[in-house]
Amino acid sequence: MARNIQSLERAAAMLRLLAGGERRLGLSDIASSLGLAKGTAHGILRTLQQEGFVEQDDASGRYQLGAELLRLGTTYLDVHELRARALVWTDDLARSSGESVHLGVLHQHGVLIVHHVFRPDDSRQVLEIGVMQPLHSTALGKVLSAYDPVAHSEALESDRKSFTERTVCDLDDFEQILDITRARGYAADVEETWEGVASVAAPIHDRRRMPVGAVGITGAVERLCRDGELRPELIAAVRDCARAVSRDLGAGRF
Amino acid sequence: MARNIQSLERAAAMLRLLAGGERRLGLSDIASSLGLAKGTAHGILRTLQQEGFVEQDDASGRYQLGAELLRLGTTYLDVHELRARALVWTDDLARSSGESVHLGVLHQHGVLIVHHVFRPDDSRQVLEIGVMQPLHSTALGKVLSAYDPVAHSEALESDRKSFTERTVCDLDDFEQILDITRARGYAADVEETWEGVASVAAPIHDRRRMPVGAVGITGAVERLCRDGELRPELIAAVRDCARAVSRDLGAGRF
Repeated sequence: MARNIQSLERAAAMLRLLAGGERRLGLSDIASSLGLAKGTAHGILRTLQQEGFVEQDDASGRYQLGAELLRLGTTYLDVHELRARALVWTDDLARSSGESVHLGVLHQHGVLIVHHVFRPDDSRQVLEIGVMQPLHSTALGKVLSAYDPVAHSEALESDRKSFTERTVCDLDDFEQILDITRARGYAADVEETWEGVASVAAPIHDRRRMPVGAVGITGAVERLCRDGELRPELIAAVRDCARAVSRDLGAGRF
Repeated sequence: MARNIQSLERAAAMLRLLAGGERRLGLSDIASSLGLAKGTAHGILRTLQQEGFVEQDDASGRYQLGAELLRLGTTYLDVHELRARALVWTDDLARSSGESVHLGVLHQHGVLIVHHVFRPDDSRQVLEIGVMQPLHSTALGKVLSAYDPVAHSEALESDRKSFTERTVCDLDDFEQILDITRARGYAADVEETWEGVASVAAPIHDRRRMPVGAVGITGAVERLCRDGELRPELIAAVRDCARAVSRDLGAGRF
């Protein structure tokens, strides 16, 4: 009873492989990437295809992810309690701050965005729900790393890639930032992930005081900062939002 | 080699079961719904959980869909060629029509929405990407049923549920509507799916002239119709959009 099911693990590895590539993959690529015999790989792919998790391009015979993943992923969002509780509060935060709002949870080695409210202006923006952000450089990621022990180990084990000149990659420096995050109750990212972009985030706790996610605003550094510092009224708005969602999840007032 | 992999089929059935329910399910519910021994069901669930496809609630021990599905579903959208080609054209259609735009493809027994542009006003709207629509009553579904033989069989085999007094459920009447759809080159839904809501949709073809999807606008019947008829300028705008996307996919001009 203690063993996991090998064909399922292989199928999951195949889906991850197809998700990582830029383009469709052929049977040989898939089999050799995963160290499987072609016949074994084909049996798994055919079943995945029948279930809608994988699609095969008619012309090239190559494989890509299937539509059933989108349907199931959307259903995941529909039953996501944190997201449901946060909908109204994140809308309010976008309106009061004038910036875009992201709600993130720990997933694998990063932050999975489960809700995104566009900046309330007429600019064209790309929806980022389902997208991953790094743990070590973003405000959401630092909050999760500071408060969630699992996220913390993930961040320590990751290679902490440098995205800009300001990204903090060194382990001791990173731990110090997490100490500051815990002391202040929020995390910042000023051009550490994207040039010209800053963000602020605060932790969300549930009724058992467990850190279940983080909420934050992201925008042009010229708008979020004043004299090189994050504007205090924006920090306050983010922390207010995180507290409101936590209360809605049943967290105590103190 | 011709057999599908049973544990994968069971895992897919489990995910569909979890997607269908309103709430989290316990091990016994899952095992009995699928006619599996508890031990078998538990082995599959544990592997799915390890791979992130399923999450277990700490307090109740019940299962729900996992975050990895959202990440993979979003990646599916990123590599969706039809969607990528349609992004600009659907934005234009929303702006010119003043209504919300949906792009749909056939998936299982319905229309899967792969792109949704909000109505360009300040109203609060819910994103419907990843949501399913019925084939027999919506404009998108009728277009797919009229042009795609697989969608057609799916629509004939479905139970064609009545959503409003105007839903067409009878088989002969439905076939007649598909004939009209093919003759006119577009389909309409005036309060056949939602009271007070109308939609118009047109087919998108690829370079091999295969029907690969449908695009349409949806809005209040008071705005989309005039004197009981769909406004011709809106029908023209939808068909223009479908033609532009088809051309972008390599379809010939004639």
